[in-house]
Amino acid sequence: MSIPENRGDLFGGERLRRYHVPRARIIPPEHVYPVDEWRIVEKRFYPRFLAQTETIFALANGYLGLRGDFEEGSPVLDGGVYVNGFHETWPIFYSESAYGFAKTGQTIVNAPDGRVIRLYVDDESFDLASTQLRHFERTLDMREGLLHRELEFETASGKRVRVRSRRMASAQRRHLAVIDYEVTVLNAPATILLASELANRALEEEASDGDPRKAHRFDARVLETLNRHVDGLRATIGVRTKSSRMQLASGIDHLMDTECPWQHWAEQSDEVARVIFSVDASPECPIRLTKMVAAHHGRDLPTEELAARAGRTLTRAKSVGREPLFEEQRQRLATFWEHADVQIDGEPSLQQSVRFNLFQLFQATARVEGNGVSAKGLTGRGYEGHYFWDSDVYVMPFLTYTSPTRARNLLSFRYGMLEGARERAKELSHRGALFPWRTITGEEASAYYAAGTAQYHINADIAYAVRKYVSATGDAEFMAQKGAEMLVETARLWADLGFFSESHGGSFCIHGVTGPDEYTAVVNNNCFTNLMARDNLRAAARVCRAFQKDSPAAWEHLRHETRVEIEEIETWEAAASAMFLPLDEKTGVHAQDDSFLEKEVWDFAGTPADKYPLLLHFHPLTLYRQQVIKQADVVLAMVLLDRDFSTEQKRRNFDYYEPLTTGDSSLSSSIESIVACEVGYREKAFGYFLEAAVMDLADVSGNVNDGVHIASAGGVWMACVYGFAGMRDENGVLSFAPRLPESFERLAFPITWGGQTLDVEITHRATTYRLREGPPIQVRHGDAVLDLHAGEPVETRAGD
Amino acid sequence: MSIPENRGDLFGGERLRRYHVPRARIIPPEHVYPVDEWRIVEKRFYPRFLAQTETIFALANGYLGLRGDFEEGSPVLDGGVYVNGFHETWPIFYSESAYGFAKTGQTIVNAPDGRVIRLYVDDESFDLASTQLRHFERTLDMREGLLHRELEFETASGKRVRVRSRRMASAQRRHLAVIDYEVTVLNAPATILLASELANRALEEEASDGDPRKAHRFDARVLETLNRHVDGLRATIGVRTKSSRMQLASGIDHLMDTECPWQHWAEQSDEVARVIFSVDASPECPIRLTKMVAAHHGRDLPTEELAARAGRTLTRAKSVGREPLFEEQRQRLATFWEHADVQIDGEPSLQQSVRFNLFQLFQATARVEGNGVSAKGLTGRGYEGHYFWDSDVYVMPFLTYTSPTRARNLLSFRYGMLEGARERAKELSHRGALFPWRTITGEEASAYYAAGTAQYHINADIAYAVRKYVSATGDAEFMAQKGAEMLVETARLWADLGFFSESHGGSFCIHGVTGPDEYTAVVNNNCFTNLMARDNLRAAARVCRAFQKDSPAAWEHLRHETRVEIEEIETWEAAASAMFLPLDEKTGVHAQDDSFLEKEVWDFAGTPADKYPLLLHFHPLTLYRQQVIKQADVVLAMVLLDRDFSTEQKRRNFDYYEPLTTGDSSLSSSIESIVACEVGYREKAFGYFLEAAVMDLADVSGNVNDGVHIASAGGVWMACVYGFAGMRDENGVLSFAPRLPESFERLAFPITWGGQTLDVEITHRATTYRLREGPPIQVRHGDAVLDLHAGEPVETRAGD
Repeated sequence: MSIPENRGDLFGGERLRRYHVPRARIIPPEHVYPVDEWRIVEKRFYPRFLAQTETIFALANGYLGLRGDFEEGSPVLDGGVYVNGFHETWPIFYSESAYGFAKTGQTIVNAPDGRVIRLYVDDESFDLASTQLRHFERTLDMREGLLHRELEFETASGKRVRVRSRRMASAQRRHLAVIDYEVTVLNAPATILLASELANRALEEEASDGDPRKAHRFDARVLETLNRHVDGLRATIGVRTKSSRMQLASGIDHLMDTECPWQHWAEQSDEVARVIFSVDASPECPIRLTKMVAAHHGRDLPTEELAARAGRTLTRAKSVGREPLFEEQRQRLATFWEHADVQIDGEPSLQQSVRFNLFQLFQATARVEGNGVSAKGLTGRGYEGHYFWDSDVYVMPFLTYTSPTRARNLLSFRYGMLEGARERAKELSHRGALFPWRTITGEEASAYYAAGTAQYHINADIAYAVRKYVSATGDAEFMAQKGAEMLVETARLWADLGFFSESHGGSFCIHGVTGPDEYTAVVNNNCFTNLMARDNLRAAARVCRAFQKDSPAAWEHLRHETRVEIEEIETWEAAASAMFLPLDEKTGVHAQDDSFLEKEVWDFAGTPADKYPLLLHFHPLTLYRQQVIKQADVVLAMVLLDRDFSTEQKRRNFDYYEPLTTGDSSLSSSIESIVACEVGYREKAFGYFLEAAVMDLADVSGNVNDGVHIASAGGVWMACVYGFAGMRDENGVLSFAPRLPESFERLAFPITWGGQTLDVEITHRATTYRLREGPPIQVRHGDAVLDLHAGEPVETRAGD
Repeated sequence: MSIPENRGDLFGGERLRRYHVPRARIIPPEHVYPVDEWRIVEKRFYPRFLAQTETIFALANGYLGLRGDFEEGSPVLDGGVYVNGFHETWPIFYSESAYGFAKTGQTIVNAPDGRVIRLYVDDESFDLASTQLRHFERTLDMREGLLHRELEFETASGKRVRVRSRRMASAQRRHLAVIDYEVTVLNAPATILLASELANRALEEEASDGDPRKAHRFDARVLETLNRHVDGLRATIGVRTKSSRMQLASGIDHLMDTECPWQHWAEQSDEVARVIFSVDASPECPIRLTKMVAAHHGRDLPTEELAARAGRTLTRAKSVGREPLFEEQRQRLATFWEHADVQIDGEPSLQQSVRFNLFQLFQATARVEGNGVSAKGLTGRGYEGHYFWDSDVYVMPFLTYTSPTRARNLLSFRYGMLEGARERAKELSHRGALFPWRTITGEEASAYYAAGTAQYHINADIAYAVRKYVSATGDAEFMAQKGAEMLVETARLWADLGFFSESHGGSFCIHGVTGPDEYTAVVNNNCFTNLMARDNLRAAARVCRAFQKDSPAAWEHLRHETRVEIEEIETWEAAASAMFLPLDEKTGVHAQDDSFLEKEVWDFAGTPADKYPLLLHFHPLTLYRQQVIKQADVVLAMVLLDRDFSTEQKRRNFDYYEPLTTGDSSLSSSIESIVACEVGYREKAFGYFLEAAVMDLADVSGNVNDGVHIASAGGVWMACVYGFAGMRDENGVLSFAPRLPESFERLAFPITWGGQTLDVEITHRATTYRLREGPPIQVRHGDAVLDLHAGEPVETRAGD
């Protein structure tokens, strides 16, 4: 993976030139991770990149997440094990509170840690940071879903020892992680002691320093140990969070495989259970310990039951055996890549980073059943492990077109929040439902409403995800059972929130909301929000009318659940038709909101590079007062609601907003790349794509230590497919308009659509479409309509 | 004091009709306080009004404040002793923080309490709440500045005892309070034990329940006792706040006057020092204990030094003796009333409540040297004891025209904050100075910036107070030494904050601020703010030009302190000339801000009475989104900047805004009364005046337990003088335009102006002006110019 020395030039704009200075905080990836299309390889142990690599080498399956710290338990900065949704609550304290402020903070916490295997050689403990290393190599194998490590060291007494380890968060068995740990003394006999732990560790969190992107710091221990059990090679521990009363049981079990003589025993202290293996190691005789780690959680189940479940997970895993478990993982990943890989020829370093993003999407969503996708996946505790719109707007497209089942799971999870959203709407004096801006439980957890609760667009984002999912998959059953109800309740909220405004000539206006751009807050007629609300209102009206006409049972069910009446549908249609869109007459630009264009333009020239991100250096009022953008707002609307803008309009808007957009959020680059593609700014399209692609590997935001940026990862997929391949999917028509970057020799990816999978391959010479199997389908390529039959590739020459 | 049964009708509007319901929370004052023009009398002990009467019967002198709880120490709800500025600090925690948020909370705390004299009869302790009372009467004597109480009770064994007490916070000796406590057994001998305490009591504060108007709750004891000393009849205690490290010493000393045999001794426990008097009382032999209480505080002085000072205060007070001390107080009050009394004939209950408001102004400001005036004076801990704009806009007019010395003290205190305001401006990326919205120390303490830091108008409010004070008093020295510097630095901020806007035709716009109305936040071109900023810019420019022309020394000094240059003055003048004022063309109404008139109007008809105050029932976004007003905004501008509006314009604005104004703030009624007066709405003028006048006595806001509403008290004075007497003071011209309410037979008050005192007396028949002494002056009465000579009253007949 290489990054050009002078990225500012590559990116070509004022905005990116500032990275010259903060580059100090960027990992120089060419030193750390050599280019390898399927692997992220670390050739040396870099203590100074510890924080970043704990994230980069994290493993997860959507349920379990393991930070990339080391088996031996040190050195560690912010290591840990997470279980999706396993969180603690705390009362949000406001020095000046007000009605309707979110009351309960929610923070994902460290589950008991079953990963550690402490290593002692002749009673001397091994510590990576202080030991004389002769060799170190760590590899994230994205094709196989494994983390490998191999190292060799020499003790003070001259004994040389080799350690090889592999680990995985099993995508096949979501409660299971497996660690394969092999120690070999190379040059002399030694006593090797392996202390395999299962620990309820105290939370040792860094203070937030006022950085709103970090997690809450607890003053006291969060997890109570309710029971602990050690029997032979197995240990289990049951814990409960103090305030949220969530219960969780973790277990570990072992397979020992060595020809050296060994014995084992157990030890327990208050919060740690240990199984100790003592081995009389002879040279070149490998000692191979396979450790199984299991976790089950639930709110209402006793920890004994959860511990029994963890035990059964372990028993089953042991009975399958080490290599078959790893083989399962390989198979699972193969299936994933078969449906999701994006191949880029001609840019091996970009191929590597694109795959890294796709792999992170896999890790965040593989087994996300009954939970959401948090902003950091399960790779870190940034943003408290909360679920935001990131999942609906940035992750859902990838899932919809590569794994509809997981897309459906994620929407079903949102549906589970509907009742709470109805309550929240009521609390805020609204009809319908208002989804929480950030949450784990479904309850609003935003402690700063101006950039939280005020982001009403979350409602339309979810409705949009529903509409797009059903349209791409044809999953009418989901629409009938859950989707329509969500559309109706969200539409209701818009109808209640907005009003037909006399001062705007009878247009339907929505006041007092915050759009995506968090450097602007609580405004009237945010363009993105109004457009998305319109889409939401129309989608709700359309599905109601369609049900009424064609699906009496679905209509009956929907009316029973929502008491919707035709008159109400008419008001949605009226509101949608009259929706106000702020368009500046002079410039022809869509105003981000009613007053945005009246503000003073931020003094970019006078803002030194070390003042970015601005949010850490300027009061919100200073930011809100001026034309300066944290993340794409109007520009994002142009991607999501492609049809609502002509290309000329898109270009005008992009020309206006791009220079105002700081890139202080990771949610912009991919979106700007897509629009730049469409309006013909090829260099910019590539520059923004590059920025998004290396977001985490190059630590562009400087906070990858808190976890990967899952929304940006989803954005990278969109930039490839919506941007470079120009894919659109509206009104049942799937279309493509490729615009390959010059340096790409080939871009290829599969798309799952209407239950079938299509392979798209783009070169500068031609685009080829291959339907894998099933009945024929039509796609559009530019203006041409292509009929695709399974097994019969259709090639369109560039320029056709 | 009587309130008409049907206040809704009296007030005549939708707005006040709602008080029908919450009247349950209003003290029915006719039962509690019989009409008495100089006194507030409580004829019975009402345990259920304990919270309110602790405020109503509080005593203060601007330095010391004593809540109205009882000498015997019980019953007590939120009793206490405050010393102005004696506060604790605490880190403000934000669950989601951002750059520039206020960091340090500041809360006035209970100083050691030297008021308690516990009473035991034959070893049985006396407690008001549980004792068989035969008589109880408590009187706040506003003419003398005393709180009297007389009660008689019978013990279980049939002994009858009479207690008479008087107390005062000495206006002559600001560190001193005096309690005169007399016990007489009436029908049989008894052992009377008096335990006189000086206690560092634990803080026992009620939780705030999310009500933003209450004080911060500390988790731990705030005051450490550093030393304690008891010697004979005297005890002292030295304490320090844990975090702010403020030091304070309190002392008590005693005079015992009785013919009964008595002895005394001292007791000490950890946090309490007691001097015990044991008296063998015979029937009808009075036991009279006079207790002196002193307090001194400082940040850098050792408590030993402070204790020595308290000791000297006590020594001097004892040497003066009881009655002369009370006589001093009487004299001091007489002087106050001579310069400040507002007489109303024909409405005895209104006379009483107006005097109550004036008396509260006296108590809040009498000795406010080196401190500010908090929103509750020193009568309660509401709003944390913070200083707001209330003091500059609502209290300063009263002081300017009745006690210029105290007015100057208050402005000097603001001047003391200038350096901190410069720092704060810098922190928020501004030039000039930005005064804190709420503070004790001078550092911004607002934890909710949208209704705190965003209220930039505080700057102009202070500048306005400076300009008006200097204009009314002719105090050129203050302007030269302090005032001009404040004007320059505040003007600088406006010039930096605003900008000449293309989209507003080159007008000077100020974006992203909050005006007085806290149901609207962070808007562009708040009319009040723009007008006040213009006034500020002009005042600064004017004084600079005047200094440059006529006062070389003052100019030199000002340039030295501020580095101001002529070019800068020109930019202020340009900004002032081009200041944008949002005027709606269709209706001719001044818009409260750029978008106010575009909002939906609040559904007042659909808002039940128990939903007021709205802030306790609706999310800020819901309030911000609609046309609904917490406190007068445009309407306040019309009072402060009278000249900037024609009467017709005032009427239009009043007609528009009055129905939108909820009265959820105590800052509106007096202001609305003044404007209603001017535009000829006599009934409304009287109704709003009544509401303001009984704000505390009738507990209109339902929170008088947290302290009196000092701003409203100042507003009551303004409503009499600016409203009913129509006084204006602009461009060196003092003018009157009386509009007496029908039920008033006579309104009379003194005005101090240009160093002279003028008595104004208004009846329906005539208005009479009497210059007390000194050189002649001119005043205007309507269109007539009157020459006033000392001792020669000038009468103008109504209609002249």
